[in-house]
Amino acid sequence: MAEPSRIWTHIDFNLDGKQAGNLHVPHSVDLSAYAMIQIPIICIRNGEGPTALLTAGNHGDEYEGQIALRKLAQALRPEALRGRVIIIPSLNYPAAAAGRRVSPVDEGNLNRVFPGRANGNVTEMIAHYVDSVLFPMADVVIDVHSGGRSLDYAHTALAQRVTDAAQGAALRTLLTTFGAPHSVLTTGSGGGGATTLYAAATRRGIPALTTELGSGATLDPAGLEIAEQGVRRVLRHYGIAPDLACEPAPPTQLLTSLGPRHAIYAPCAGMMEPLAKVGEHVRAGQAALRLYSIDDPLAEPLSLHFSADGIVSCRRFPTLCARGDGLFHLAAPIDAD
Amino acid sequence: MAEPSRIWTHIDFNLDGKQAGNLHVPHSVDLSAYAMIQIPIICIRNGEGPTALLTAGNHGDEYEGQIALRKLAQALRPEALRGRVIIIPSLNYPAAAAGRRVSPVDEGNLNRVFPGRANGNVTEMIAHYVDSVLFPMADVVIDVHSGGRSLDYAHTALAQRVTDAAQGAALRTLLTTFGAPHSVLTTGSGGGGATTLYAAATRRGIPALTTELGSGATLDPAGLEIAEQGVRRVLRHYGIAPDLACEPAPPTQLLTSLGPRHAIYAPCAGMMEPLAKVGEHVRAGQAALRLYSIDDPLAEPLSLHFSADGIVSCRRFPTLCARGDGLFHLAAPIDAD
Amino acid sequence: MAEPSRIWTHIDFNLDGKQAGNLHVPHSVDLSAYAMIQIPIICIRNGEGPTALLTAGNHGDEYEGQIALRKLAQALRPEALRGRVIIIPSLNYPAAAAGRRVSPVDEGNLNRVFPGRANGNVTEMIAHYVDSVLFPMADVVIDVHSGGRSLDYAHTALAQRVTDAAQGAALRTLLTTFGAPHSVLTTGSGGGGATTLYAAATRRGIPALTTELGSGATLDPAGLEIAEQGVRRVLRHYGIAPDLACEPAPPTQLLTSLGPRHAIYAPCAGMMEPLAKVGEHVRAGQAALRLYSIDDPLAEPLSLHFSADGIVSCRRFPTLCARGDGLFHLAAPIDAD
Amino acid sequence: MAEPSRIWTHIDFNLDGKQAGNLHVPHSVDLSAYAMIQIPIICIRNGEGPTALLTAGNHGDEYEGQIALRKLAQALRPEALRGRVIIIPSLNYPAAAAGRRVSPVDEGNLNRVFPGRANGNVTEMIAHYVDSVLFPMADVVIDVHSGGRSLDYAHTALAQRVTDAAQGAALRTLLTTFGAPHSVLTTGSGGGGATTLYAAATRRGIPALTTELGSGATLDPAGLEIAEQGVRRVLRHYGIAPDLACEPAPPTQLLTSLGPRHAIYAPCAGMMEPLAKVGEHVRAGQAALRLYSIDDPLAEPLSLHFSADGIVSCRRFPTLCARGDGLFHLAAPIDAD
Amino acid sequence: MAEPSRIWTHIDFNLDGKQAGNLHVPHSVDLSAYAMIQIPIICIRNGEGPTALLTAGNHGDEYEGQIALRKLAQALRPEALRGRVIIIPSLNYPAAAAGRRVSPVDEGNLNRVFPGRANGNVTEMIAHYVDSVLFPMADVVIDVHSGGRSLDYAHTALAQRVTDAAQGAALRTLLTTFGAPHSVLTTGSGGGGATTLYAAATRRGIPALTTELGSGATLDPAGLEIAEQGVRRVLRHYGIAPDLACEPAPPTQLLTSLGPRHAIYAPCAGMMEPLAKVGEHVRAGQAALRLYSIDDPLAEPLSLHFSADGIVSCRRFPTLCARGDGLFHLAAPIDAD
Amino acid sequence: MAEPSRIWTHIDFNLDGKQAGNLHVPHSVDLSAYAMIQIPIICIRNGEGPTALLTAGNHGDEYEGQIALRKLAQALRPEALRGRVIIIPSLNYPAAAAGRRVSPVDEGNLNRVFPGRANGNVTEMIAHYVDSVLFPMADVVIDVHSGGRSLDYAHTALAQRVTDAAQGAALRTLLTTFGAPHSVLTTGSGGGGATTLYAAATRRGIPALTTELGSGATLDPAGLEIAEQGVRRVLRHYGIAPDLACEPAPPTQLLTSLGPRHAIYAPCAGMMEPLAKVGEHVRAGQAALRLYSIDDPLAEPLSLHFSADGIVSCRRFPTLCARGDGLFHLAAPIDAD
Repeated sequence: MAEPSRIWTHIDFNLDGKQAGNLHVPHSVDLSAYAMIQIPIICIRNGEGPTALLTAGNHGDEYEGQIALRKLAQALRPEALRGRVIIIPSLNYPAAAAGRRVSPVDEGNLNRVFPGRANGNVTEMIAHYVDSVLFPMADVVIDVHSGGRSLDYAHTALAQRVTDAAQGAALRTLLTTFGAPHSVLTTGSGGGGATTLYAAATRRGIPALTTELGSGATLDPAGLEIAEQGVRRVLRHYGIAPDLACEPAPPTQLLTSLGPRHAIYAPCAGMMEPLAKVGEHVRAGQAALRLYSIDDPLAEPLSLHFSADGIVSCRRFPTLCARGDGLFHLAAPIDAD
Repeated sequence: MAEPSRIWTHIDFNLDGKQAGNLHVPHSVDLSAYAMIQIPIICIRNGEGPTALLTAGNHGDEYEGQIALRKLAQALRPEALRGRVIIIPSLNYPAAAAGRRVSPVDEGNLNRVFPGRANGNVTEMIAHYVDSVLFPMADVVIDVHSGGRSLDYAHTALAQRVTDAAQGAALRTLLTTFGAPHSVLTTGSGGGGATTLYAAATRRGIPALTTELGSGATLDPAGLEIAEQGVRRVLRHYGIAPDLACEPAPPTQLLTSLGPRHAIYAPCAGMMEPLAKVGEHVRAGQAALRLYSIDDPLAEPLSLHFSADGIVSCRRFPTLCARGDGLFHLAAPIDAD
Repeated sequence: MAEPSRIWTHIDFNLDGKQAGNLHVPHSVDLSAYAMIQIPIICIRNGEGPTALLTAGNHGDEYEGQIALRKLAQALRPEALRGRVIIIPSLNYPAAAAGRRVSPVDEGNLNRVFPGRANGNVTEMIAHYVDSVLFPMADVVIDVHSGGRSLDYAHTALAQRVTDAAQGAALRTLLTTFGAPHSVLTTGSGGGGATTLYAAATRRGIPALTTELGSGATLDPAGLEIAEQGVRRVLRHYGIAPDLACEPAPPTQLLTSLGPRHAIYAPCAGMMEPLAKVGEHVRAGQAALRLYSIDDPLAEPLSLHFSADGIVSCRRFPTLCARGDGLFHLAAPIDAD
Repeated sequence: MAEPSRIWTHIDFNLDGKQAGNLHVPHSVDLSAYAMIQIPIICIRNGEGPTALLTAGNHGDEYEGQIALRKLAQALRPEALRGRVIIIPSLNYPAAAAGRRVSPVDEGNLNRVFPGRANGNVTEMIAHYVDSVLFPMADVVIDVHSGGRSLDYAHTALAQRVTDAAQGAALRTLLTTFGAPHSVLTTGSGGGGATTLYAAATRRGIPALTTELGSGATLDPAGLEIAEQGVRRVLRHYGIAPDLACEPAPPTQLLTSLGPRHAIYAPCAGMMEPLAKVGEHVRAGQAALRLYSIDDPLAEPLSLHFSADGIVSCRRFPTLCARGDGLFHLAAPIDAD
Repeated sequence: MAEPSRIWTHIDFNLDGKQAGNLHVPHSVDLSAYAMIQIPIICIRNGEGPTALLTAGNHGDEYEGQIALRKLAQALRPEALRGRVIIIPSLNYPAAAAGRRVSPVDEGNLNRVFPGRANGNVTEMIAHYVDSVLFPMADVVIDVHSGGRSLDYAHTALAQRVTDAAQGAALRTLLTTFGAPHSVLTTGSGGGGATTLYAAATRRGIPALTTELGSGATLDPAGLEIAEQGVRRVLRHYGIAPDLACEPAPPTQLLTSLGPRHAIYAPCAGMMEPLAKVGEHVRAGQAALRLYSIDDPLAEPLSLHFSADGIVSCRRFPTLCARGDGLFHLAAPIDAD
Repeated sequence: MAEPSRIWTHIDFNLDGKQAGNLHVPHSVDLSAYAMIQIPIICIRNGEGPTALLTAGNHGDEYEGQIALRKLAQALRPEALRGRVIIIPSLNYPAAAAGRRVSPVDEGNLNRVFPGRANGNVTEMIAHYVDSVLFPMADVVIDVHSGGRSLDYAHTALAQRVTDAAQGAALRTLLTTFGAPHSVLTTGSGGGGATTLYAAATRRGIPALTTELGSGATLDPAGLEIAEQGVRRVLRHYGIAPDLACEPAPPTQLLTSLGPRHAIYAPCAGMMEPLAKVGEHVRAGQAALRLYSIDDPLAEPLSLHFSADGIVSCRRFPTLCARGDGLFHLAAPIDAD
């Protein structure tokens, strides 16, 4: 038998109205034997209807979603709903409070540990609660990410490619409704593989979408706008907020990731001068960047080139690079099928 | 097949007499490839008879038990025994040597990892050895805890509520014999749930008791006295030390914990002025504490109130509080049943 | 020419009324090039009259003064004053916010760096501002300390022995007015020597008093009461708050410190069982404590003894001791002279 | 007598031609008793003529200058010079190699310790060498800075306001020649006061300029271009590189800083949504930013407003803010005088 | 079904010729969301034939193997081979780059976590890749270790005692061919037990050998020579490099380890003066070392003695010792059987 | 007026007999407000006569002197003396207890801060006490050093070249009497310049000698023997211990250091294979070492060569090198003058 989550909350998910509270994650430490890490959570419900689970701050240094979901939580009026919206704007709260990608409590990367463990470390307990308690309530899941401190990302929504036709159609509709400029169908060969939040939700058959909006641990107003409008359109589409104000969905370009074998990694440390922009169409053999030596100012910079045609999906944001850092990733258009 | 423990000792638990030695936990690190963490252990035996396993220093910053068991180990004469006493006065030795609740070696909280792992980290290896090697020898287990650096605790002994009637009776007798001012029957919904030493011993059918004596990482002489007398009475009661000097057991009040939902957690950081004492009877709605802002000296302090009638079982000891810190826990009297 | 302080504030010390603001200490770091450490400060003034400078949180883990001065700042009405009260309730603010004795910014012990440096580290800049900007405005200075995390202190007020007769009389009166149970005249041979706040103020000819109230980084209600009443009596005595409510001063016992050569230091690491209480009269040769070996539970504890007759002024609070830790300090009564 | 620098180099500053080498700063540590921190330096000389000292990487996370000076060092041909150019592209080399503002060796902020100390820590020794060895050789000094990890800066050059008329005219000409979009005359009341590199050079009567180009620890191509062109124009203007290719200087707007009293500091932690851009003209009372609570997603964000009319010279780059962080600084146009 | 490794490489192990590349271990961190830890690997192949897997840098502070395998990788010409050689000269690359025994990424000791985990931490992922991907290709495995920072080791090769006769004979031949001065047959009761690389390879039926050459995190030229010659002889013996230049194998002495119960551990901290050398024959009761007190210079040093006859296989290298450090280990000759 | 030292001791330097005690350095920290760092010191005196000051553990990871002086302190009988011997075997005691070159308390390198500061950090206070309290009592000073963790040193004694003829002769005699295999006359251009203990003593006109014995933070028996015999001969020579047993002085070779400009520093990180031994005569142009790339196993190692004829005085001990690490230092014979 599966172990139950040790996380608890005063929130009653079956009550109508708008409730604000915390998830309590027990964390017993030197200075606080009975401490609870408190993760803010909002539940807004009005009668029967589908449930949307909306999360951000899965990585703590990505801000467009954290602010978009705060704005939404403030704007939604329970009486205008038909169903339920559960919002966790800073899901890995210790990481968010520290302004870090990973948790200062256990160095855990929340989007690499799904489905988590009931008795694991704090990050694993959070993943386990989302997977075992929240997913069973959800009819649609959106986990808003951005480039964060280390990446500059084209505005993109992502969903997993699935074999089930009905779920596949729901995912395509979800991407079109969200309406990011780029939409990527992923195959699980990328960064987190099967250990991400949206992959875990997809595994349970739920239409689930994630995003990459903005760059560099600052706030991109355009990315914020995409997050706000996209989430609003999805809530309308699912009938949860039938009258919620939003713009019509702009067109989106459907892409597939070219994966790590066509990515460019730093072969040594240096300072990067990028020669291509995110969203740009590039050709195999085209120069991608120059890498300047830190030690020897007279050294000829190293030029690195793209190994395939494609569209730049993201590039490294910090100028200073260490050996092995991912510098550029490519995607390619896919035909409607 | 279960993996055997990697911990070893020169102690022969079947020899008569008083032996002092160490548990050797292998720990291979940068500065010492073949190091052994050495946990002092005493075995005192005289012929056949029951075995008492006595531990303290499970949390390294709790001292009443660590000193009481040292005194006992020095006082016991083998020839006065009928059976065996195994004493580990500083069970999570690295934590004890550092004066910390958790281990500096792996940040492990020993009382949250039972039943441990044979090939886990150092803290998990200790739990696994206690569970797989020492529990099978034991007829009664006492694990002496105190409030430590972060808690001010009423003098209390605790045992788990069990479904087996015989074990339940043995546990009631054990609490009465130990004779702490308060005795709490726990349901596993509290701090460590099923991952504590005494819960693991109880799961194996052994009468097992833990305590909370003293507060604030200092030594409470009254708590020390309770530990010394209680352990002596239990050794007499089990016939292991039939003539051991001890006082008669004072009466104890039987309680049940009200659990985390009636506990008070700090909603934000601040400096706490407590308005109730441990052991005090309080009423729902009564003020529990005032929390002063660190940043704004003119801010009105936040008043927090109890949400139930009860007896204060513990309060946070440090004045400075972080968001989520446990500030007050309540218990309630239970009728004899 | 002396360098001016780099600390600035929006507070105008010559305005009547109650102002709350911050001292801004420039601190340029990786994540914040133009950051200011903001130390809360209150100035309350009503026309001409003497100025009292009241500080606490000089050591960040001492709480009686930090809360007493917050309460006073909230209670004082400008219209009831004749002169000025400047209150800094958490003077080494970074240390206070971290709950530490010393500053996490530079590991500085504020009460060991007076008179500070204009271009020194953050802790030194704070000392320099107090010495060069605030002391010249002050007619009386009170710096409220307590035992903090590492000491258990008898309730005591302290002032320096001076050669100037008038200042000496003012200091005696200040101690009597403050009315702590014990009053110690110090000679500068103690902990901080000439580098403490109250020694620096005394050097400038200002009547200055410090205290030791409470123990163990928690809040002692009796110590809080002494701080509140003592400060109120001093404000009345100086005519700054002529009608401020307060109790009459209880009698105080005048003492002198016996200094480090009659203090007891731990000769090796161990766990301390104290055998005397703070405030207790002890005799030379009397046992002070037993020190238990951490490694060897069968080792006879080491007994340490007092080397003079005296009154215990403080003892170490944590049970765990390292080599060189101060365990007991003595004082002795002095005749009125 | 002043102590001589302990820094040495194989470079002979009086030789013609292009030499590349290192400044050797002795740094004796656990793992390397006789280690030298090696700071790359280039000296290019051709016969008699004035000397330009060009530095970047004074703060290690600012990149436009570090790359512009590497490009220049590679491009300059000795035979085309009349005089000497000394280039140190990563002056606080340990900070640059770590990608940090301050040095990981001693947490030193190089631009806050001038004129340094001969026997100080590594950062102080670097400042002392620049001040005592390099400044006496220099006829013009440019120290290229940018916003770095924590600031978003309008493209700006800065020089100190001086009382000497001839030096003042030289500084005005230097700013006009460099040709950044904004030029600020500073009064020493800002961030570093008298402890910066360019203030120390100015104190010695040398025309000295610093800059703020780009933001966020990434590379701003426009800022890189300004740095490259500006430095080339100055080398031509001083006759050191009479034929060096460069664009004509664009017009610059002359400004003065409004100082810290009109800056906006975060009164508490939060996530900042900026409402004004760098370079924008703002009015007193205009909203500058919204600060969102991290803890309470339903909390109304805090709105902060400008306290004067002005031009936004910089804003904080990271979204996450701590109490006391500088969020916005203002400048104001000044008439030609 | 077992989970597949997340580690990938551009190397094609079935191609003829000499390929140099990296193992890519995904490691997503604050400053680099899509970083790959890149572990250098060389594959040299010429047609069909057996495969040798050669590794060093399993512990990052052991250098003889890291340099010997670099030299071999440079020397081997593909056309002179009959089969395949896979070389990973710095297997726990992050530990090697940090000069540490264990990994700075996760504090993992690679030689204590076999067979690893597909989704574990970085160190566990490396072990899992070696066990699940490389071992199935290998016909012989050599993992070159040395004493490293904490040990002084006699020049020794080690293999596990197995029950299968054919594998046993192959292991004996492997030891004789390698030709270290000492050869030890281990029983799995030592340091790493079943969790080492060579034990995991042996478990899969592969002839596998490890070594201990040199001491103290420096390079021992004699140990380097033994590693170079021994590996060359093994490649010749297996017919992989039939003409590779090497010396004939010198004789080796066959030993068995006496295990931890005849090892000497420091009973307390101190400074060790060793009285026996590695490789020396000692007798039970003979003095092994004197341990000087750090605190008390007049204290008689503690003398520790050997508890069995034997040959000193290793001693602790650092003079300063902590309680529990392994100081001496013994081995004993075994008759040919 | 100079500030007095804050360090105190119970030792009376004018008493006859053998006293053991501690220097007490006040160090007030979070966990111990009144702590004293206790540095063991021995004073042995018999009537009038000269005073020898003998120190070791100036760098905490150098052991030959620490053990040699412990042995001497135990062996010396007061009644056999004519004068006084003051022994501090672990002068930077916190560094020695941590096994580190520099102090863990303040990262201070004691041999780089002479003459220290009365109110400086702990390391500076120690230097100040030695310089201001102990040097005025001393007629001869020996400070025993070794290579420590990072260096492999030829057995050497060192003294400073001075202009005063009488002191110069005394220094030559001191080197000849001490009788190390090599004796170096230094010019102050080396590692510590004027900031070392023996340079500070020399500045006061005292004959002072330092040494470099052994390597690599282990104990070199030959170096221990040189330290023991050399110190004994000096005590006899000065008439302090006229009958102390010792061997006659072996001949010593007089050398001068070639300084940092003929030293070899690592131009980049790598693993060093040394090609010359300490004490070896080398020629300009001879290969000194090969430096292997950590990243690229196929990269040709970098060969570095000596730039002068000379004798290798020391080489770097750890194989792993960082940019700027000192790898080889040379000395040259000098004629008697």
